[in-house]
Amino acid sequence: MRDGLQSIGSIMPTGAKKDWIAAEAAAGVPEIEVGSFVPARLLPQLADTAELVAFARTLPGLHVAALVPNLKGARAAIESGVDKMSLPFSVSETHSLANLNRTHAQMFNEVAAIVAAVNDTPADARPRFEVGLSTAFGCTLEGAIDEDDVVRIAEKVVRLGADEVGLSDTTGYGNPAQVRRLTSRIHAALGRERLTGIHLHNTRGQGLANVMAALEAGLTTIDSSLGGIGGCPFAPGASGNIVTEDLVFLLESMGLHTGIDIDRLLAVREQVQAALPGESLYGFLPNAGVPKGFTYARARRGHAVT
Amino acid sequence: MRDGLQSIGSIMPTGAKKDWIAAEAAAGVPEIEVGSFVPARLLPQLADTAELVAFARTLPGLHVAALVPNLKGARAAIESGVDKMSLPFSVSETHSLANLNRTHAQMFNEVAAIVAAVNDTPADARPRFEVGLSTAFGCTLEGAIDEDDVVRIAEKVVRLGADEVGLSDTTGYGNPAQVRRLTSRIHAALGRERLTGIHLHNTRGQGLANVMAALEAGLTTIDSSLGGIGGCPFAPGASGNIVTEDLVFLLESMGLHTGIDIDRLLAVREQVQAALPGESLYGFLPNAGVPKGFTYARARRGHAVT
Repeated sequence: MRDGLQSIGSIMPTGAKKDWIAAEAAAGVPEIEVGSFVPARLLPQLADTAELVAFARTLPGLHVAALVPNLKGARAAIESGVDKMSLPFSVSETHSLANLNRTHAQMFNEVAAIVAAVNDTPADARPRFEVGLSTAFGCTLEGAIDEDDVVRIAEKVVRLGADEVGLSDTTGYGNPAQVRRLTSRIHAALGRERLTGIHLHNTRGQGLANVMAALEAGLTTIDSSLGGIGGCPFAPGASGNIVTEDLVFLLESMGLHTGIDIDRLLAVREQVQAALPGESLYGFLPNAGVPKGFTYARARRGHAVT
Repeated sequence: MRDGLQSIGSIMPTGAKKDWIAAEAAAGVPEIEVGSFVPARLLPQLADTAELVAFARTLPGLHVAALVPNLKGARAAIESGVDKMSLPFSVSETHSLANLNRTHAQMFNEVAAIVAAVNDTPADARPRFEVGLSTAFGCTLEGAIDEDDVVRIAEKVVRLGADEVGLSDTTGYGNPAQVRRLTSRIHAALGRERLTGIHLHNTRGQGLANVMAALEAGLTTIDSSLGGIGGCPFAPGASGNIVTEDLVFLLESMGLHTGIDIDRLLAVREQVQAALPGESLYGFLPNAGVPKGFTYARARRGHAVT
């Protein structure tokens, strides 16, 4: 939700967001990033994040995540009782300065301060703290990003106490060879448990090809956005999120059990479209439907997954 | 061109088609299926196929392909001097009867007759004869297709003398696990040289994910359509071709040298759009552009392809 709703003009009413969270969790989506603890004046679309976290925590089995831009946001996130919080850290220092007005040195200080805030929290109330390595696959300002820099920053934030890092293709520049290389380098440097997730964009149509590489490299948390919301790939600068519906179909058709019911997911899509009447939703599966005779991975136990 | 132009209402003038072939060959595309030897009353869009083959043969280095629906079409294709001809053979017999009014037994007879026609041709004028295994990944009428049937038909047509088979996801039902399984089974049964190509559709957004599996399985000829022409995935029954521009970007960004110049390809797109003013073109890369600092695979020799 977070990357979708922050990128569109419409402000979705809190009630509609709760309905979305509840319906998507009921469809089987295991983790939802419900919002971002940023000042409401910057992103009024996400001003109700604390209330959404509180609501989402009441849903059994749902892993509740939120983005935090800094220590202040992290404190609010911890207070809200979120399961996981992600701090975006731009590997491109030019991008970090342009977007967050922070140097890498300042960002490392922020990471250390957030780790201290987590450690000051009672153990049973501590969220998992992930640092998302933004622009890891390239930067619209700097161009190519040195993979050594990605690995170096990953090592340093984990040394500072972050629980894990995530790879983020902020710019839609990523390719499958890069996904494999960066994942295997970080796994080799830090251990596989320190990198389990990836945030890919479909800006250049490469989203699911990159997912294939991510799966093969052993990543298990793949971000996507229902209806690709917030991601019109035809608008300059738009993120082009991977469409959840297409991703779930990919995984289930390959024999990878997701626990997500596609029919219920498509019903959530209708519900969200009704709550965002002016916004475009994307994706191929919703128009084409599942193939005749489609079965879920779990129902095909006899069939070898290769 | 063939799968694009046969699926749209517009009839492109022969001169514009020649300009397209020449420009795309000059951009580095190594093989073009220029048309189909079907009766003009069935597909008036492709009535000039023989003239296009004759023109395309004058372009140095271009591999010229055409589709043939039957022996009569194959004779015309041989006469035209095409380098490769493909006969679609529906693994779903229901689909074969519905679309071509032919049983599998009749299709095997057609294959044998075409092989005889090829063998009656002087050795230096024989085209390569491929049988395309249509509906190999599923059928809109039958649903799931037994993979044993795909392998059995592949074995039989090669035994009858076809040079090779191709896998064709006619319905956009395919998934990467299927691509891997079918490719490796046919390679094991017939040898890798008997299956080198695949025709995938993007109907459910899985096109490039399936390409990833095809590359890993060792396939080297990946069909696609400039601008995804003929493939509006939002129209019922439309094929949803893989977009050449997005495919070339995938391959080059991964470090796989294609010999295709993306800027020139995008210029061909403009030229083709101008010649087909009423038709929609698709794809992500043409809108987003290549990443800042993008380099071609050949220019990155020092960089390991993983």
